[in-house]
Amino acid sequence: MAQTSIILRVELIHDKVTFGDVAALISKSGGDITSIDVIRPGKESSVRDITVDVTESAEGPIVDSLKQHEGINVINVSDRTFLVHLGGKIEINPRLPIKNRDDLSRVYTPGVARICKAIHEQPEKAFSLSIKRNTVAVISDGTAVLGLGDIGPHAAAPVMEGKAMLFKQLAGVDAFPICLDTKDTEEIIRTIKTISPMFGGINLEDISSPRCFEIETRLINELDIPVFHDDQHGTAVVVVAGLLNALKVVNKNIASIRVVVNGIGAAGVSICKMLLNAGVTRLVPIDRDGAIVRGGSYSQPMWQWLAKQPQVEANEGTLHDLVQGADVFIGVSRGGVLGVEAVKQMAPDRIVFAMANPNPEVDPDEALPHVRVLATGRSDYPNQINNVLVFPGIFRGALDCRARQINEPMKLAAARAIASVVSESELNENYIIPSIFNEQVVLKVRHAVIEAAILTGSARRIPKDFR
Amino acid sequence: MAQTSIILRVELIHDKVTFGDVAALISKSGGDITSIDVIRPGKESSVRDITVDVTESAEGPIVDSLKQHEGINVINVSDRTFLVHLGGKIEINPRLPIKNRDDLSRVYTPGVARICKAIHEQPEKAFSLSIKRNTVAVISDGTAVLGLGDIGPHAAAPVMEGKAMLFKQLAGVDAFPICLDTKDTEEIIRTIKTISPMFGGINLEDISSPRCFEIETRLINELDIPVFHDDQHGTAVVVVAGLLNALKVVNKNIASIRVVVNGIGAAGVSICKMLLNAGVTRLVPIDRDGAIVRGGSYSQPMWQWLAKQPQVEANEGTLHDLVQGADVFIGVSRGGVLGVEAVKQMAPDRIVFAMANPNPEVDPDEALPHVRVLATGRSDYPNQINNVLVFPGIFRGALDCRARQINEPMKLAAARAIASVVSESELNENYIIPSIFNEQVVLKVRHAVIEAAILTGSARRIPKDFR
Repeated sequence: MAQTSIILRVELIHDKVTFGDVAALISKSGGDITSIDVIRPGKESSVRDITVDVTESAEGPIVDSLKQHEGINVINVSDRTFLVHLGGKIEINPRLPIKNRDDLSRVYTPGVARICKAIHEQPEKAFSLSIKRNTVAVISDGTAVLGLGDIGPHAAAPVMEGKAMLFKQLAGVDAFPICLDTKDTEEIIRTIKTISPMFGGINLEDISSPRCFEIETRLINELDIPVFHDDQHGTAVVVVAGLLNALKVVNKNIASIRVVVNGIGAAGVSICKMLLNAGVTRLVPIDRDGAIVRGGSYSQPMWQWLAKQPQVEANEGTLHDLVQGADVFIGVSRGGVLGVEAVKQMAPDRIVFAMANPNPEVDPDEALPHVRVLATGRSDYPNQINNVLVFPGIFRGALDCRARQINEPMKLAAARAIASVVSESELNENYIIPSIFNEQVVLKVRHAVIEAAILTGSARRIPKDFR
Repeated sequence: MAQTSIILRVELIHDKVTFGDVAALISKSGGDITSIDVIRPGKESSVRDITVDVTESAEGPIVDSLKQHEGINVINVSDRTFLVHLGGKIEINPRLPIKNRDDLSRVYTPGVARICKAIHEQPEKAFSLSIKRNTVAVISDGTAVLGLGDIGPHAAAPVMEGKAMLFKQLAGVDAFPICLDTKDTEEIIRTIKTISPMFGGINLEDISSPRCFEIETRLINELDIPVFHDDQHGTAVVVVAGLLNALKVVNKNIASIRVVVNGIGAAGVSICKMLLNAGVTRLVPIDRDGAIVRGGSYSQPMWQWLAKQPQVEANEGTLHDLVQGADVFIGVSRGGVLGVEAVKQMAPDRIVFAMANPNPEVDPDEALPHVRVLATGRSDYPNQINNVLVFPGIFRGALDCRARQINEPMKLAAARAIASVVSESELNENYIIPSIFNEQVVLKVRHAVIEAAILTGSARRIPKDFR
C-alpha cells in the first residue's frame, strides 16, 4: 500500500471543537500526525496546517471524518508528494551572472566566437570549454518504469528528474533527463547518437528487456563516451557489493559457493556476468521456464552467452528443484516465487537477496529466522539493495577521467568500493550495505572507478589526485 | 578585429622596474589596463594580476615586450573569455534538497510512482508535474554558427549555452542546449520530435538556409509545442520593432513606404513576411542575383511564396537600381554591398538598417550624415538590432499560456511590445530600440504574446494575470 503525506488546512471553531478532537479523528482513521503549523490564530477560530502520514486508501476517510464533525472546516487538502513535483524538480542555471554588456560580449556574441573556433580546431576542447565535462543525459523511452511498465515518455519524466537530482546532490554531476517518444531500437540508438555531442556520458534508464541489451551494446561500440544502463548494471554492482560483504559474514569463499539467480532480464543478466567476473564458479541462472543450462540453445543472445559459460551448471530444472543446496539466492523476479519452504532447502548459512518490488520473492518476516543474511529492495528491512549507491559515483569517476567506456573492471571496482565502506567492525548480518547518504560511498566509488579506468586504458585523462 | 580581455600575472623586481614601466609597455603595445590586483606584496619583488583589454593581435606583442624587459617575470597569461567558459556556462540543480530517506521516497522511488501514474492517466499533467512547464530546448546542428559557418555540433555548444544563460537570467526560462550530430533534414526533424516530450518549447538556432525552413515548418505542424527558429524570427521581430519606431521619428506611415530588403536567407524571408503582416504595401526583396519579383519563378519555396504576394514589386533589377527612391533599406546580407553613394539615392528621411556582421552593408560613419535613422547589429553604434530582445520574452509568454505555436500575430505583438518600451518622450533618431537590460522588455513582450495567443486560439491555458 503506497504511503504518502498530506497537508490538511483546517479551520477550528473553538467553542465546538478542540485540537485534541481533530487529532483523535485523524488517528482513528489511520493517519499519523507529523507536524502542525498555526497559519492564523484567532479568538473564535484558528486555521492550522496539519501534516499527516497516511496510506493512500486512508486519505478519503480522514477527510470525510473531519468534514462530518461540527466546528471543523476543511479548507484544503494537499499531498506533499504532488507539491514537491509542481513545476518539476530540477532547474537550469547560469554558472555566472551576465551583469553588463561586457559580460554579455564574453559569454555570447561576439566573444564566444573565439571559444567556438578553439573547439572547432581542437575538438577535445569541448571537454574543457563546454558543459560536456560534467554533463550526463538520463535517457528513457518510458517502457519499463519502476513497477509500472510501459507508461510512455511523459509519465516517465518524474523518475528521470529525480535521478538528475540525485546525480547533482550526491556527486555534483549535471544530469539532464531526456524522454524519447519512440520504442524502436534503431530509432533510439540513432537519436541518442545524434544528441550525444553535448554529453560526457549517457545513463540509460527504464528501457525494457531485451531491447535494452542491443541499445546499450551498440551505443557503447558506436560512441566514445560512457553508456551505462542503470537497471542492468546499477543493481548488479550493489548486489555484488552486498554479496562480497555477506560472504565475509558467513565466512564462505566466492570461488566455492553455488549461486542461484532467478529472473534473467535486464538486471539478472548483468548480475550473472558480474558474478562470473567476481569469481563465482557454480552459477544457476533461472527464468520463468526453468534453468538456463550450459550447452542449451536460446534465442535471446544474452541467454545464449550464458549457456556457453563453463561456470553455468548443466542441470535442467525449476527454481524449486535447483535452489536446493544453494548457498546464495538472488532474485530479481516476482513477489513470492521462492517461498519460505524453498529457503529451508538451501545450504546452511544461506544468503538470500530477494529484490522483487514491492513484494520480495519470499516474505522477509517469514524468511528471516531461516537465513543468515537477507537483503531486499525495500527500505523498511535491513540491507536495502539500492542502485542510488552506484550511478552517482560511477559517473563521477568516469567523467573525471574522461572514460571512453564503463567497462567490467570498472563496475567490479565500484562494487568492491561500496563493500569497503562497511568496516570490519561494523559488518554484521544486518549491515552489509552502506547508507546512500554515507558520503564515503561516492568518494570511494569514484576513486576505484578512475583507478580501474586508468589500468584498463579507458581513461583519456589522469585526474590531478591520481598524478 | 576581435576584442578580448587578458589577465597577466607578473612578478616585478623592485630595483629593476616600476609599475609605471609596466603600464607604459602595455599601453605602447595597444593594451588598455582595466584593473590591477596585488597577489603577493614583497620587499624585493611583488606579484600582480593586471587585466588588460586588447585586440587579439596585440596580445602577443604585449607579452613579448614585458618578457624582454629586465626585472619583469611573466608568470601566466590567461584570457578572460576562455576563463568564463571553463567547465561550461550552465549547470543543472535540484529545485529542493533531498535531506533524508523521507525526502528521497517522495522525489524518487517509491513515492514518485504516484506522480508517474497521474501523468499516465492525464498526459496534460506533464505540464504541471514535470519540468516541461518551464523548459525549452535550444537546438542547433552547428551549420550556421554566428559568422563562422558550418563548425559542427561540438563547436556550436558555447553559443547554445550562452543562449541558455540569457533565457534564465532575462526570463526565468530553463533552457537546455542540444547540439545535433547530423545535417540531414529528415534526421533532424525525427530527432527533435523524438526528444520533444520533456520540453515545453523548441528554439532552433544556427541551422543553415534553406534547410531551416523545412525543418521549422514541419516541426510546427508535427509537434504541439512552440517551435521558433530564432535566426529567422528573432531578427525579424526586432527589425519590425525598430522600424515601427523609426517611422514615428520620420513621420511616415507603414502603408505608404517602399522597403528594400537585401539578403533573402533565413532572416530576410521572415523579415519580408512580418513586414507584409505589419502593413507594408511596397516590398522589394533582393538577393545575390537581383530582385525577387512578383510573378517570377523560383526553385526555393519561400522565394516562390514571395513572388506570389501582391505587395512585392514586379520590377527586375540589381540592388543599386532598385534602392533608388526607397524609404527604407533593410540589409541582412554582406559587408559593404550597399555603399554610401547608393544611400544618397534613397528617398528623403531615409531609414537604413544595415545588419551584416561584423561589417555592415554600408560604413556607419559614412552613412550617418545622409540618413535620418541608422541601425546596425553592432553594440558600438546606436540602435543595435539584437535578438536577445525577443526570444526570452516570447518563450516566457508562450510557456505561461502553454501555446501550441508561436504564430504570426504573436510575433507581431512581440515587435509592437518591444517598440512600446521606448516612450514618446525618449524616442529619437538614436534611440528606437530599448536596451536588452531594460526589464520592461520581457514583461511587455510576455504580456503581448499571451494576449495574442489567447485571441488566436494558440493558448491552452489562461495565466492568472489574464483571468
